[in-house]
Amino acid sequence: MSVLTPLIRQQLESASVATITTTLYKRGLRNQLVQGVQPVGGGGRRRMIGPAFTLRYMPAREDLNGLEVFRDREHPQRKAVETCPAGHVLVMDSRKDARAASAGGILLTRLQQRGVAGVVTDGGFRDAAEIAGLDMPAYHQRPAPPTNLTLHQAIDLNVPVGCGDAPVFPGDIVFGDEDGVVIIPAHLVAECAHEAAEMTVFEDFVLERVQAGQGIFGLYPPTDDATLPAFEQWRKACGR
Amino acid sequence: MSVLTPLIRQQLESASVATITTTLYKRGLRNQLVQGVQPVGGGGRRRMIGPAFTLRYMPAREDLNGLEVFRDREHPQRKAVETCPAGHVLVMDSRKDARAASAGGILLTRLQQRGVAGVVTDGGFRDAAEIAGLDMPAYHQRPAPPTNLTLHQAIDLNVPVGCGDAPVFPGDIVFGDEDGVVIIPAHLVAECAHEAAEMTVFEDFVLERVQAGQGIFGLYPPTDDATLPAFEQWRKACGR
Amino acid sequence: MSVLTPLIRQQLESASVATITTTLYKRGLRNQLVQGVQPVGGGGRRRMIGPAFTLRYMPAREDLNGLEVFRDREHPQRKAVETCPAGHVLVMDSRKDARAASAGGILLTRLQQRGVAGVVTDGGFRDAAEIAGLDMPAYHQRPAPPTNLTLHQAIDLNVPVGCGDAPVFPGDIVFGDEDGVVIIPAHLVAECAHEAAEMTVFEDFVLERVQAGQGIFGLYPPTDDATLPAFEQWRKACGR
Amino acid sequence: MSVLTPLIRQQLESASVATITTTLYKRGLRNQLVQGVQPVGGGGRRRMIGPAFTLRYMPAREDLNGLEVFRDREHPQRKAVETCPAGHVLVMDSRKDARAASAGGILLTRLQQRGVAGVVTDGGFRDAAEIAGLDMPAYHQRPAPPTNLTLHQAIDLNVPVGCGDAPVFPGDIVFGDEDGVVIIPAHLVAECAHEAAEMTVFEDFVLERVQAGQGIFGLYPPTDDATLPAFEQWRKACGR
Amino acid sequence: MSVLTPLIRQQLESASVATITTTLYKRGLRNQLVQGVQPVGGGGRRRMIGPAFTLRYMPAREDLNGLEVFRDREHPQRKAVETCPAGHVLVMDSRKDARAASAGGILLTRLQQRGVAGVVTDGGFRDAAEIAGLDMPAYHQRPAPPTNLTLHQAIDLNVPVGCGDAPVFPGDIVFGDEDGVVIIPAHLVAECAHEAAEMTVFEDFVLERVQAGQGIFGLYPPTDDATLPAFEQWRKACGR
Amino acid sequence: MSVLTPLIRQQLESASVATITTTLYKRGLRNQLVQGVQPVGGGGRRRMIGPAFTLRYMPAREDLNGLEVFRDREHPQRKAVETCPAGHVLVMDSRKDARAASAGGILLTRLQQRGVAGVVTDGGFRDAAEIAGLDMPAYHQRPAPPTNLTLHQAIDLNVPVGCGDAPVFPGDIVFGDEDGVVIIPAHLVAECAHEAAEMTVFEDFVLERVQAGQGIFGLYPPTDDATLPAFEQWRKACGR
Repeated sequence: MSVLTPLIRQQLESASVATITTTLYKRGLRNQLVQGVQPVGGGGRRRMIGPAFTLRYMPAREDLNGLEVFRDREHPQRKAVETCPAGHVLVMDSRKDARAASAGGILLTRLQQRGVAGVVTDGGFRDAAEIAGLDMPAYHQRPAPPTNLTLHQAIDLNVPVGCGDAPVFPGDIVFGDEDGVVIIPAHLVAECAHEAAEMTVFEDFVLERVQAGQGIFGLYPPTDDATLPAFEQWRKACGR
Repeated sequence: MSVLTPLIRQQLESASVATITTTLYKRGLRNQLVQGVQPVGGGGRRRMIGPAFTLRYMPAREDLNGLEVFRDREHPQRKAVETCPAGHVLVMDSRKDARAASAGGILLTRLQQRGVAGVVTDGGFRDAAEIAGLDMPAYHQRPAPPTNLTLHQAIDLNVPVGCGDAPVFPGDIVFGDEDGVVIIPAHLVAECAHEAAEMTVFEDFVLERVQAGQGIFGLYPPTDDATLPAFEQWRKACGR
Repeated sequence: MSVLTPLIRQQLESASVATITTTLYKRGLRNQLVQGVQPVGGGGRRRMIGPAFTLRYMPAREDLNGLEVFRDREHPQRKAVETCPAGHVLVMDSRKDARAASAGGILLTRLQQRGVAGVVTDGGFRDAAEIAGLDMPAYHQRPAPPTNLTLHQAIDLNVPVGCGDAPVFPGDIVFGDEDGVVIIPAHLVAECAHEAAEMTVFEDFVLERVQAGQGIFGLYPPTDDATLPAFEQWRKACGR
Repeated sequence: MSVLTPLIRQQLESASVATITTTLYKRGLRNQLVQGVQPVGGGGRRRMIGPAFTLRYMPAREDLNGLEVFRDREHPQRKAVETCPAGHVLVMDSRKDARAASAGGILLTRLQQRGVAGVVTDGGFRDAAEIAGLDMPAYHQRPAPPTNLTLHQAIDLNVPVGCGDAPVFPGDIVFGDEDGVVIIPAHLVAECAHEAAEMTVFEDFVLERVQAGQGIFGLYPPTDDATLPAFEQWRKACGR
Repeated sequence: MSVLTPLIRQQLESASVATITTTLYKRGLRNQLVQGVQPVGGGGRRRMIGPAFTLRYMPAREDLNGLEVFRDREHPQRKAVETCPAGHVLVMDSRKDARAASAGGILLTRLQQRGVAGVVTDGGFRDAAEIAGLDMPAYHQRPAPPTNLTLHQAIDLNVPVGCGDAPVFPGDIVFGDEDGVVIIPAHLVAECAHEAAEMTVFEDFVLERVQAGQGIFGLYPPTDDATLPAFEQWRKACGR
Repeated sequence: MSVLTPLIRQQLESASVATITTTLYKRGLRNQLVQGVQPVGGGGRRRMIGPAFTLRYMPAREDLNGLEVFRDREHPQRKAVETCPAGHVLVMDSRKDARAASAGGILLTRLQQRGVAGVVTDGGFRDAAEIAGLDMPAYHQRPAPPTNLTLHQAIDLNVPVGCGDAPVFPGDIVFGDEDGVVIIPAHLVAECAHEAAEMTVFEDFVLERVQAGQGIFGLYPPTDDATLPAFEQWRKACGR
């Protein structure tokens, strides 16, 4: 978890998923957004930041998925809940299928208690109202009440997976806000976080100007000669 | 409506759609969730419980669906609104098509006035904001402003139908909460409601323990010898 | 913008998207609803009314969509933001693809500053939480954080387009409420707005009666001889 | 079956599904095509013409769909096979779900033996290669090997249904060729068949002219003064 | 590969994918069909039978998927082609995405040369016409010309995967015919193949009777007392 | 049409759509395939090569799309048929909607007569069997019998469009084979055609070796020192 220095974390917290996707776009990465997920119960909570710890589901075969499988401490879903490191984000590859749950309220509460930084599935969670009430951020497609055994068999822990059509490698940085969730390759997080934080300062300046009535030509992007000096002055003035 | 005794109703109210799907799963029923529906206007209202009274739509043929059809008191949609028994849930098979409405604010207000317990369509409702303000729960896919005549012709009352890929027989028990809506076959509701209520008591115990820091291994499911005795003691202590 | 007289605007504000779709249905127009869009951040703001000013996107070719394209004041997206007339609604044809943004918070803030009446895309917006906080209404499919360059190339301004499978001609009247957005052909807006306003008065009467316990037969539609006289009396009484 | 006179049948055989959809379009019917179906095993067989006899499927509930249900002579699927009248087309409403079969080779062979004119499902058939070898035309979405019991419960015979989003009433005329299948309302078949046959004669003339090098302006549609007289002369010459 | 005795292989060759799905259905397995795949280039080749050897794809990250990756002999796609055992079927989990290829003509030719029994992907193959000309059966969704690197990164060999929503464990028996592909759990193949072969003999008898004009009631299923004795006599007569 | 020299044309004819997508991939272009289209009536005809001439459809508004619109020689669909230059490929943006036709047999016959090199729509054609019999190649999603007026209004000629999610600029080179259709930006066609032709020679060598039993390691790609010299020798021997 060392790639996530306090500085990087602070930079991400000041930035947004939208801004980060732009920094990735500039590096040729166009598919890092987890498509189709939203905060459980709507927006409004703090950002989700942490290295990915993954759980891979495959389609469930009926004879292998009786309720008794949960008695096995090696069952990958349950093991994921007890072994995902604190500060990490548990990323579930549910093959974009929200017809059955990826997990529910008790397991997510346990994850929160263990200090996990958040959870994202490209399927859905059951007990969505309960999960919406947790402090830990969670993202899914839509509520999915049926037990995961109905359609999903947990099969692998912490292998590279897909989530909402994005590639996710264990240790990649998972970053979520009200817009959704993006996967930042571990080796790029320092430069992307820095760049996104800088972009955010500039965009805050732009927004203030736009709110004051200025047009975007010359301002955004700053093609007018006067724009960048004005920005530097503004930046100094507000100490950012 | 006799299958819905006060006891069963109380058990369902204490339980959840998620828990009920698990009791059905244990009985080999995996497809009883109405896939893809949500409370109109978001969550937050009381649970929906009642026997199913169904309305079947077929694709509309233009020459049979002028606005004048509503003048006919035998028009199945209007008849459904005036004949769905109090305490029942009106279930509309809209072939999962939300491009036109299944019904709107006036009809749902009338259903509420008549004492109907709720309404669910696998299409959408028009006047969604108005419907969200009713006391009667309603579930749909998404708002659908165009009149139902645009795409849906009401054709049958109280026949077996599909709703969100779930089989629905008249008299099945329809149960909805924030997670969605499940169809409980009438002959199973007593045993499923009882079992779900018991599961809920146990899961409340588990949740309390998890919130207190206990791990799920041995606790959920209760494979540790100490778990069930502790649960019984807790149960006695809180009088459930 | 002359078709939108104060009277028409007032009639639309009293009516709803649902009611307008019915007036269009009576004139043989069944596909004027922008399918699949919702208010950014949920409902609750004032209605959106204005003539359409359109922006057409095509699929992005990678070599033509570096970030530097925004430096060009002729870039159609940026030009749309600075030239969409005040009081108009900017309608974006994003080919129903919400995997990348149609626009973001700064551009929508600028549109608001310029007096634009609203924005609708059949794709998605980035910075959705920020946009939800604007006074200007905006409609999309879902949040879409990646920059539009990822998938969308802005190519045309103010040509006829499709939006959510609805045909949109520049100057058509775009009308949005909590249910969604409908496109009213310019030459029909006067008669449809009038008719919808009248329907709304009658439906308000019907709703009051239904809330008072009356059934819909004979009332809605008013096939009982007594209904229309009662309505006229009610109407006079409440001065509408 | 009296609506299908030998003359109408001959007219339909000379025309095409495409032409018939145009005659329906002129009468305001835009949704009569069974969307998404194709001849089993590809094209190449004779046209399918006959009145609709319908079978309605609903989603299967597991406890009601053991293999033993086929022992019941009242099972609607089996009863459909033995009671669909000779000369009729069996139309199956499979809710557009081809994940399990609507029927298979033995049942379709029996239908052929009974003189049934064809079969269409908006799901799929199992034993597709065997069915492709029958003389009786059959249309489906794609091959679907699993038994219908997996997902489909036959529930109603000869009620109005939807098939591929088209409305189908018992007795409507079902017409199929290589392009697909269209549903002609019974009361319109005489005029549509006549009109389509006439259109076909004219289009054969047009095609001959186009193959000879003439352009379509003035010819198709016949806006040149010379076109219709030339057509009449050609028609007389080839005795049609 | 020992589970596939010559007897079992012969039984499967006499049976069909449809029949096997019924034997699995009787054992509670409803999801073993690889949904949405068809023989490359259409039907007409011999059946595909062999134990599964799997290849798992994840979404491609652009910086990890330059063309040079194929120079690495450990690249899982290339390694799969050289290590899938003779007689096995290579099953590719392409997350149902046919926008880019799972493999192409050269690799499939190599697999054929190595004695591999067949290939199935839930995505698509490039060089489809070339692959259709091989003796080795291959199944996919549709042709997919772009190189797999565009969207798919090969990541794992011979782990449990999903293919067309079916669960596939290495060593499961993969069986394909003109209808599609089914996955038979290894421990069930002996009993399912035997049962399917027996069903096929009976269905051949039934088909002969139906072709001779007999109805299905009492015959299929054999509820008439005379049916099974007649079948036994027929069976003896034709020596099966 | 000068970019398509006889050499380039010959190179494309020797290569394949798959190979061209690889040359584009190397140049950073990943979305040039027209997704979801196939040759009308299946494969087997000569390759389609020509510069793009485009037709843009928007959703049809009913009051603007009576059959009489075709009497207007300025109607864009009809004008496209008479003005698409010989040797060009007519590319239709039908918004991926095959519920109604993009065009039919007479218009495609006229295009063939006029020397047009081919036609592609991301919707469907009516009269598919007739079109399959033409010499001119045509590609679509699936047969679509209803007249285009049902859903599509032709609105623009020869503007940049999307087709099957690919960007198409007038003058881009459209290249189709049995696998599908790819759009080659005009300025890249010379280098891509050359490179693809060279790749094809090498892949023919590889295929011959693989058919002779050689493995792909070291051969494809040619990482063994001996491979390229062997290739050069083979190439000389067969005079390519």
